[in-house]
Amino acid sequence: MSDQQQTPHDIPDVSGRTVAVLGGTGDQGRGLARRFAVAGLDVVIGSRSAQRAQTAAEELGAGDLPIRGLENAAAAAEADIVIVAVPWEGHRELLVSLEEELAGKIVVDCVNPLGFDKQGPFALPVEEGSAAQQAASVLPRSRVVAAFHHVSAVLLLDPEVDAVDLDVLVLGDDRDATDQIRALAAVIPGVRGIFGGRLRNAHQIEAFTANIIAINRRYKSHAGIRITDV
Amino acid sequence: MSDQQQTPHDIPDVSGRTVAVLGGTGDQGRGLARRFAVAGLDVVIGSRSAQRAQTAAEELGAGDLPIRGLENAAAAAEADIVIVAVPWEGHRELLVSLEEELAGKIVVDCVNPLGFDKQGPFALPVEEGSAAQQAASVLPRSRVVAAFHHVSAVLLLDPEVDAVDLDVLVLGDDRDATDQIRALAAVIPGVRGIFGGRLRNAHQIEAFTANIIAINRRYKSHAGIRITDV
Repeated sequence: MSDQQQTPHDIPDVSGRTVAVLGGTGDQGRGLARRFAVAGLDVVIGSRSAQRAQTAAEELGAGDLPIRGLENAAAAAEADIVIVAVPWEGHRELLVSLEEELAGKIVVDCVNPLGFDKQGPFALPVEEGSAAQQAASVLPRSRVVAAFHHVSAVLLLDPEVDAVDLDVLVLGDDRDATDQIRALAAVIPGVRGIFGGRLRNAHQIEAFTANIIAINRRYKSHAGIRITDV
Repeated sequence: MSDQQQTPHDIPDVSGRTVAVLGGTGDQGRGLARRFAVAGLDVVIGSRSAQRAQTAAEELGAGDLPIRGLENAAAAAEADIVIVAVPWEGHRELLVSLEEELAGKIVVDCVNPLGFDKQGPFALPVEEGSAAQQAASVLPRSRVVAAFHHVSAVLLLDPEVDAVDLDVLVLGDDRDATDQIRALAAVIPGVRGIFGGRLRNAHQIEAFTANIIAINRRYKSHAGIRITDV
């Protein structure tokens, strides 16, 4: 699709895609699933428990929205685009177990490896450099993208919030894949998907979530970022 | 000053302060020096060569602005607030050599330890975690703050650019020091100084500059960031 682009702002059409959200019963996963479904995309919430996934889908409005719940592997198998929104603990093991189901797909890692102590949040060291690079390492047949790290689950889940004041940074080494995820981000009203660099520069985007948490504590905010002059 | 604060947005008065910019003959240093002097602060450009520092000061308008040039140690000795805008190579050695002159002062590190190869910019590993933490490690008697990493030297130096569309993230463990540097950032029209977390979370702010460079290459921009909901 990139050879059809006139400007770096152009995005492809992602309507009609099926998006799975692994770890979709957590706050961030439910928030993204809800917004994608509201935008009309076919959404599958994945969880270790199919029952919990179905319950989450129902609570998010499965009666009115195109959203359903399945066990993680089944959710991954159904989707064109798979969002990984699981806790950092268990991240590698889950992806290893789904290598077959995720082959050939765009896998969007939005996991933030963070620790917390009395002084607040801090970035955890990751052997591969970042959660996204770990995903790329264990999923050689997938097209791994890093995105959606800084979205506020509170805002995504709040039905009173129509538009979210946020740029989603989208990182990856595959131009078509990052363009599709830029388009996926832009289905959320108010959000732009901005290319944010190669996957090897994902660590600081994940770790920046620690700074956002510190900002939220100081300013009692649901902070996000906007990129200026773009 | 923090006990006089009504809100986390309040900032102290920094007018009348003397600000030294070490490495002030580089683009980032000259850009900051110019903006601080335009705002009426007393500015001293520091360089290894007093002559080069004086030349830079003259080129920035020393005849009309309160700006002069001195050798780094003399510049540091004159100032209340010292900006460290030197290249990463030589960062530690310079600070070690100025430990005495910088004692008791607010030292603002804005150095980005980056490497470049055919695939573009990337963050360099730093033994202490970040340039700012390295500064804190070698300057135990100084109050080290991290800030001004993402400012575009091009915009700061452009006399046609009245206001800069940017939030400066200010990190540190000393509330009064970070408040003063938030105020220093805010003397640049358009800029807000936003508390961005403790010094241990400085690495990702420094490394994020690699992403900004990648964004600038893709979008042909002079990108900065804004924090939303703050």
